[in-house]
Amino acid sequence: MNAVELIQRKRDGAVLSPNEIAWLIGSYTEGTVTDYQMSAMAMAIFFNGLEAEELASWTEAMLHSGEVLDLTAVSGKKVDKHSTGGVGDKVSIPLAPMVAAAGVNVPMMSGRGLGHTGGTLDKLETIPGFTTQLDPVAFETLLAKTGLVLAGQSATLVPADRKLYALRDATGTVESIPLIASSIMSKKLAEDLDGLVLDVKVGRGAFMRDRERARLLATTMVDIGAAHGVPVVALLTPMDQPLGREVGNASEIVESLDVLRGEGPQDLTEITLRLGEEMLILGGAATNRDEARRALEATISSGSALMKFAEVIEAQGGDPRVVENPAILPQPAHRTQLPATRDGVVTRCDAFKIGIGAMRLGAGRERKEDVIDPAVGVTVLAKEGEMVAIGQPLATLAWNDEGRLEAATELLADAWEIGDESPEPLPDVLEVIR
Amino acid sequence: MNAVELIQRKRDGAVLSPNEIAWLIGSYTEGTVTDYQMSAMAMAIFFNGLEAEELASWTEAMLHSGEVLDLTAVSGKKVDKHSTGGVGDKVSIPLAPMVAAAGVNVPMMSGRGLGHTGGTLDKLETIPGFTTQLDPVAFETLLAKTGLVLAGQSATLVPADRKLYALRDATGTVESIPLIASSIMSKKLAEDLDGLVLDVKVGRGAFMRDRERARLLATTMVDIGAAHGVPVVALLTPMDQPLGREVGNASEIVESLDVLRGEGPQDLTEITLRLGEEMLILGGAATNRDEARRALEATISSGSALMKFAEVIEAQGGDPRVVENPAILPQPAHRTQLPATRDGVVTRCDAFKIGIGAMRLGAGRERKEDVIDPAVGVTVLAKEGEMVAIGQPLATLAWNDEGRLEAATELLADAWEIGDESPEPLPDVLEVIR
Repeated sequence: MNAVELIQRKRDGAVLSPNEIAWLIGSYTEGTVTDYQMSAMAMAIFFNGLEAEELASWTEAMLHSGEVLDLTAVSGKKVDKHSTGGVGDKVSIPLAPMVAAAGVNVPMMSGRGLGHTGGTLDKLETIPGFTTQLDPVAFETLLAKTGLVLAGQSATLVPADRKLYALRDATGTVESIPLIASSIMSKKLAEDLDGLVLDVKVGRGAFMRDRERARLLATTMVDIGAAHGVPVVALLTPMDQPLGREVGNASEIVESLDVLRGEGPQDLTEITLRLGEEMLILGGAATNRDEARRALEATISSGSALMKFAEVIEAQGGDPRVVENPAILPQPAHRTQLPATRDGVVTRCDAFKIGIGAMRLGAGRERKEDVIDPAVGVTVLAKEGEMVAIGQPLATLAWNDEGRLEAATELLADAWEIGDESPEPLPDVLEVIR
Repeated sequence: MNAVELIQRKRDGAVLSPNEIAWLIGSYTEGTVTDYQMSAMAMAIFFNGLEAEELASWTEAMLHSGEVLDLTAVSGKKVDKHSTGGVGDKVSIPLAPMVAAAGVNVPMMSGRGLGHTGGTLDKLETIPGFTTQLDPVAFETLLAKTGLVLAGQSATLVPADRKLYALRDATGTVESIPLIASSIMSKKLAEDLDGLVLDVKVGRGAFMRDRERARLLATTMVDIGAAHGVPVVALLTPMDQPLGREVGNASEIVESLDVLRGEGPQDLTEITLRLGEEMLILGGAATNRDEARRALEATISSGSALMKFAEVIEAQGGDPRVVENPAILPQPAHRTQLPATRDGVVTRCDAFKIGIGAMRLGAGRERKEDVIDPAVGVTVLAKEGEMVAIGQPLATLAWNDEGRLEAATELLADAWEIGDESPEPLPDVLEVIR
């Protein structure tokens, strides 16, 4: 086979065969198909898309570009959750212990933050000693022991995706639904799951600002799952303002602990429960949403979810006392309040601007190689629909570096709009795609 | 500026500014914009095209990526001709000496053959001692001395095109009209011309099989010339069957000498004269086509064109006796005839199949690094509309290697179709675009 011919055919609208796609991805992983050929192919796919059967083959080929987990030795069903990323989206952290405490294994692999969005790994690593780098053997051992692992993507899994994602990032070919969908799904299918719940974020603070495109992405991923025999449920959820009130790293662990104690903000708690319901149903621990919700709420009221979190922290080398004493997490040197400039109701609390503002404070990465500051971030005190008086704080900024504070403040001040009429509130979940 | 952002904007249909294009091409030439970024950009251009002002900037940036010839010291006008390539297309070889003998300087830079098409440089280099590698100083000196140079593209001219062309060849992005047009025009504009005549080939044996696309390519190149203040005339000419009767390398020099002696095949002679007419008019040596044709015919009847060819051969290190004694050119070890399988009229003489057949005999290159055999090729004895009897030769195959003969014969036999009704003959020139 010949890369140029495959590129030309995709460029001209042909459908590539499973063999051709397997050869392409395999050769790219080995390096015999070059980066410059793959970037031309990615751009051709941006324009011409991939048909359902091509997408299934593409995902399959990515999935088999490296090691695939075999978790059959772990008894019970394994269900994971993936979010397309948002601002203040720490859902994985309370969700995974709740679901594990309710009896479904959660072999969770997460990512790092980039740009305006944070990453679950960065947040977890603010816990002293906590490691997210686990090889496949340690991953399986921990899962069998605690029913829960909170790890980074193993370097041996889906190497084609790591290579292709970096290439797309450098060549303007990230924004392609089939390439996004196959990137996410190949990584998740390599985890040997019995089910997957997707949180597809839509809005100002999400990668998908448009609901139509978000729905298409969700449907595409659900279809890929079906083609691989893994049931997938996707929730479309709003990401116009931050989820919960904390945007940072250590602070998001604190807020996650609040959820596990039943004291979390309403929106964050509700989305955690909704995603958890689907996970319990896919994992066979509940037959319907009501039953699932009761089981999840019981893990909070009994304290079993919090205990499960302490257990996984200890198993992964972290200091489990954090669940009783969040003050052992990194603390900022300074806090500054951002005051409202008029009386009224918050009509806009812009997740994107707050995400970028938090990044500028040091909570996120502008480039992959940047180092984050675990202690800094934004605490959102006034969300959309909430009344404020002039001078009352809209947010507290936690900071360590004055230059960074200056770089963030103007953008953050601009993230809020205050008016006279309360905006129409959005539901916690926009739609569910199965 | 940022390559990813420019790729995204072109991908999304934006028009890039002259500064952005200059930065992109400059950075690509230097290597700070990578091959994988440029191939994604080329694919985005394949889909979204370039607007006229972008194309002018793109060509300008390519043109200035390296050295530009300054031929102001050479007195008189300088006019070149470029062909998009065909089978048996040796027009440059008789044309350049005719035009130079008629008083217009011809600073000609040509290319090598690839695939089914031959290259002027390969043909010229079959003349013992002839060199086509000239640096800019030698190029100018020879032009001033003989009014004619037949050279390869200097390595110092338009390095961006060499780099980009190789990349497009490897990434399925060759077939983009703006990229083809800017590639050709940047090289020609770097020659410091007063005028340019283009022979845009259309048909089975051409890169453009479709007349609409050929017309668009021609118009695009004429417009680029206008934007740079260089008058360009494009002739659309048919390339369904080979031009003349010889398809090879040394054999095409022999046929070129026939034209210079007034004994060439009608189609080849006519196209040479038509292109020459336009060159003399652009070069100010004639005011209309009739006057130009008389001047060109006089260079044949007086022998001045043949003398000019001998002069340029000697100036470029070759053996000028070839013009009197073509037998000093490389000769094949064997000749085999391809017989007609029925009586009738030739309804198809397929330039593409004959071109590939000649390549398989060794006259062309499948890959750039292949070495050609100067002595082998195909002599077309029966062209479309000509009557043949069963057993009468359709072609003579000149060969040196039996394996190659076998690889070529079946395809060549398939290149002719014989029927009962003569096909409608095409005009020598389909249309002229100024």
